[in-house]
Amino acid sequence: MNVTVGGRTRHYRTVTFKAATNSVQLIEQRLLPHEFKIASTRDYRATALAITDMVVRGAGAIGATAAYGLAQGARAFRGGGLAKFRAHVGKVFQTLKEARPTAVDPVNAMLQVRREMRAGKTVAEQQALALAAAEEFANGDAAHCEAIGRHGVKLIRDGMRVLTHCNAGWLAFVDIGSATAPMYAAQAQGNKFHVFCDETRPRAQGASLTAWELAQQGVSHQVIADNAAGHLMQRGEIDLVIVGSDRTLGRTGEVANKIGTYTKAVLAARHKIPFYVAIPLSTIDWGMRRGRDIPIEERSEGEVLGAWGVVESSKAKGKGQKLGERAYVRIANPTSGARNPGFDLTPPELITGIITPAGIFKPRELWRNRRVLQSAAH
Amino acid sequence: MNVTVGGRTRHYRTVTFKAATNSVQLIEQRLLPHEFKIASTRDYRATALAITDMVVRGAGAIGATAAYGLAQGARAFRGGGLAKFRAHVGKVFQTLKEARPTAVDPVNAMLQVRREMRAGKTVAEQQALALAAAEEFANGDAAHCEAIGRHGVKLIRDGMRVLTHCNAGWLAFVDIGSATAPMYAAQAQGNKFHVFCDETRPRAQGASLTAWELAQQGVSHQVIADNAAGHLMQRGEIDLVIVGSDRTLGRTGEVANKIGTYTKAVLAARHKIPFYVAIPLSTIDWGMRRGRDIPIEERSEGEVLGAWGVVESSKAKGKGQKLGERAYVRIANPTSGARNPGFDLTPPELITGIITPAGIFKPRELWRNRRVLQSAAH
Repeated sequence: MNVTVGGRTRHYRTVTFKAATNSVQLIEQRLLPHEFKIASTRDYRATALAITDMVVRGAGAIGATAAYGLAQGARAFRGGGLAKFRAHVGKVFQTLKEARPTAVDPVNAMLQVRREMRAGKTVAEQQALALAAAEEFANGDAAHCEAIGRHGVKLIRDGMRVLTHCNAGWLAFVDIGSATAPMYAAQAQGNKFHVFCDETRPRAQGASLTAWELAQQGVSHQVIADNAAGHLMQRGEIDLVIVGSDRTLGRTGEVANKIGTYTKAVLAARHKIPFYVAIPLSTIDWGMRRGRDIPIEERSEGEVLGAWGVVESSKAKGKGQKLGERAYVRIANPTSGARNPGFDLTPPELITGIITPAGIFKPRELWRNRRVLQSAAH
Repeated sequence: MNVTVGGRTRHYRTVTFKAATNSVQLIEQRLLPHEFKIASTRDYRATALAITDMVVRGAGAIGATAAYGLAQGARAFRGGGLAKFRAHVGKVFQTLKEARPTAVDPVNAMLQVRREMRAGKTVAEQQALALAAAEEFANGDAAHCEAIGRHGVKLIRDGMRVLTHCNAGWLAFVDIGSATAPMYAAQAQGNKFHVFCDETRPRAQGASLTAWELAQQGVSHQVIADNAAGHLMQRGEIDLVIVGSDRTLGRTGEVANKIGTYTKAVLAARHKIPFYVAIPLSTIDWGMRRGRDIPIEERSEGEVLGAWGVVESSKAKGKGQKLGERAYVRIANPTSGARNPGFDLTPPELITGIITPAGIFKPRELWRNRRVLQSAAH
């Protein structure tokens, strides 16, 4: 999507590859929303580290980063025959896989690259095919998001007020995003609408990343505390909810997503507000039988007990606090602990529809349509 | 309640009066939870300023502060007859009233003091009666909270996990608190239970004040993000919810309280978890006919877009960020705005019971019992 830096507006993808320098180019997401910077990784180890350190995050975005990282590693190979090359690629694969051990997207993306590069008969051919396959993966991710937008755009009518939670935006993918895709498509059509971004504590991805994205695209929006959506719904000020999902169960239509999603679904159901989940097909889990079996990650207490931001003012006595610097502040009582579940599970009866690149489905219709959806996923 | 400072545990009220120095003693709530300090105001103007600047906050606490402030102002009067004294008291009253123009508690408290002091026949007598009346108001506030605890304690059975929102604790009153009263009573009985404190963004009174209170009393507790309660309820990890209220409508049983309360009530109803509201009788509004008529204060955007805390670590390059200082950090995208409704309204059908000093009532039973409740309020 577009980013305006120093008065100049340019299109950026979250992840791209520069063949001339064999480097992966990443939007440095840890600095957002306060600073826009492109990080460049010169070898696959640096790319793996960028995934580990969350320079890049989001299912589609880390998938594409790993795909590019594998191509980058393959292209850096010098001398030796195919056997040595294959061993080298295996090592690169392993390093990138271990960068975020619980994520499935990097592995799936790299498997796809490795499958396609094996058609090459020489090292050079395989190197070229690896890059082509990584580009194909990244383009595919963007195309899937675009298709989500095509299907979802009809939900956003003129004058609507749309709530979203966390960041299921283009920063989480290669471009366009999932929950944001219908919004960007509606904007491209000239529809007037307004977005409420849930702050999404504890990590505040809504206030920081989604708000930044929407601001860059010129979409009308406001940040709200996670506590405020219920009140706004009660007052008739929200017409539609669109969120993303980390994992959707194909068999049951249950949706695992950022903590707080379930709460918004419960509120939306009470107020008869349509609640949609926008997902690429790769996040549908066709095997798992019950949502309760999804392990809910318990994250660090520090996320709940404080927050990261940029210092804007301080109560320092004497020496002034340095303003404009990123800092973590402790908000909570210093002797208290916290619980911090990272995700929650929304049951299908609270979900109006699942917006996929292959169309919009009722959550309980996914399984019946699995043949279509599974073949469209590739 | 108890506070431990430097290894010594002592009982403190939120507000007290020192007759020898004619000063009001206040727990400096703006420094909590990071620092415990008693602020002393030497004249009524300083007391009014302490209310304005939120050294003290919470309905009962600012009521008692204004009552003491009126006595303080009356006692500072020197020379002149009763007419001059009355004019002086009128000025003191006005100054304290204007300290928080929308709050009703300071006005009600001061009216009570002024009524009682008028029995005095001389300036000296009225001065003495003013202080006695202020003490009576403060003692009454503490006694009401104690009675809430007596009635509410039976709700907290051994092993329960209790959710609370915002701070309806002793810091908001003279002592004991409203939502916390049943907890402190249960602890005094030796019951084992655990409290989840909603962080309560944007101002985080749950993470800071309630967590501090509970820690000081040694009550088992953890802070959670406002997003997490739904998930915990879904997993069967919350057995009871107790919150406070800023205003409860006697005619309808609707409850206005800190933003996010309504959301917790909706979630509790879905999970069939008892949802109680603990209130002193003075917060029941017997006149208003519809909750929708309660004006919902729209607070500053800055509260949502950032947070205050103590700097624990920073990403400063070169010169180090000074740690341990209070600072406001901007969390949200710098070019985004916010909506910030301060309160919301919970309908009676979501409320299991209202815990009052006169017993526990169904919200729709308040009106039928208004004679009893109105007479018990005084």
